[in-house]
Amino acid sequence: MLKLYTYFRSSAAYRVRIGLQLKGLAYESVPVHLARDGGEHLRDDYRAINPGALVPCLSDGTITISQSLAILEYLEERWPPRPLLPTDAAGRARVRALAMIVACDIHPLNNLRVLRYLTTELDASENSVNNWYRHWVEQGLGTVEAHLAREAQTGEFCHGDTPGLADCGLIPQVFNARRFNVDLTPYPTIRRISDRCAELPEFAAAHPGRQPDAE
Amino acid sequence: MLKLYTYFRSSAAYRVRIGLQLKGLAYESVPVHLARDGGEHLRDDYRAINPGALVPCLSDGTITISQSLAILEYLEERWPPRPLLPTDAAGRARVRALAMIVACDIHPLNNLRVLRYLTTELDASENSVNNWYRHWVEQGLGTVEAHLAREAQTGEFCHGDTPGLADCGLIPQVFNARRFNVDLTPYPTIRRISDRCAELPEFAAAHPGRQPDAE
Repeated sequence: MLKLYTYFRSSAAYRVRIGLQLKGLAYESVPVHLARDGGEHLRDDYRAINPGALVPCLSDGTITISQSLAILEYLEERWPPRPLLPTDAAGRARVRALAMIVACDIHPLNNLRVLRYLTTELDASENSVNNWYRHWVEQGLGTVEAHLAREAQTGEFCHGDTPGLADCGLIPQVFNARRFNVDLTPYPTIRRISDRCAELPEFAAAHPGRQPDAE
Repeated sequence: MLKLYTYFRSSAAYRVRIGLQLKGLAYESVPVHLARDGGEHLRDDYRAINPGALVPCLSDGTITISQSLAILEYLEERWPPRPLLPTDAAGRARVRALAMIVACDIHPLNNLRVLRYLTTELDASENSVNNWYRHWVEQGLGTVEAHLAREAQTGEFCHGDTPGLADCGLIPQVFNARRFNVDLTPYPTIRRISDRCAELPEFAAAHPGRQPDAE
């Protein structure tokens, strides 16, 4: 069975959980607590599985894959039904780019390890850290909104009327934004799509609050 | 003809330039200067092309694609010869994950816009900014090295004996690391692969110093 190393609150793990649900794939959750005991992800036994010491990480038999978007692409290639990507090259590029705006331009800056570095190494105040967080979320969601609002391919979901890879990226980011009290008023298309996704059982099952390790 | 919005020193644009060269695709370079006049990428005419106001961005007729790895996947799908990805799903996942360690875990933290924020908003000293830069490069290259050193798929290049997507990610990051005087001694496999890539005309043609907008 597929085994997902996950942490309920990890936004990157949340992306993969949505993808697994959308594809209807059964998997075993292996919780890796990022805060307890100095971080279970930093232990040697986890590094032996994933040298990058980050979650998520997927095991499929003897194969181990890190990086949320690489995992989602793998699921797509191994289990083509219920596709996460459209069939045309231009559409696939659009969907991947939307997911990467979140995965490359927003989330890496707001990762727990980065916020910790700001506090411990740069003596940033709580207020400065919160401003940092919101700044990158606002920049990134502004870009996503601009794409979604102006591009004809946007439908009920980020790309057409079926949820896919871009929604796997967007929804965890919206969850994080709300957690940090980012005002989502300037992003009406994102809010509409987020509300639509929230109606689907696949997104509900992947939600941090529904995970075995939720606190 | 393909049109690449690029900046000679942009690490993400450099990735795409390598991919275009490896595929033997002709393209027109459209330089977007990230420092001149407050940043040409922030101008309305460029935002009309790419709302994210970042480079690179690729135009193929009426299609416009942002995000370096989404562009490389597009090139791979539209022009399958001289593949950037292996054929097996596990190998493809490995190559994508290696590229994403650079594109998601290192480079977003060391982007020009981020270094500027540290200085202007967090009053970080030049020394603190350099430490920040080196910290994330060392973390990320350490992870890449751990994968490359222990995994049997590593060959002359990151994956086997043909250059591909993972090398498109790695080489610009090595270039950046050298620019910021990161000590590469702890990463012998990365150095070996980087030296091998430097022998190839495709990598040479994509080098920042060889671009029309090089300074």
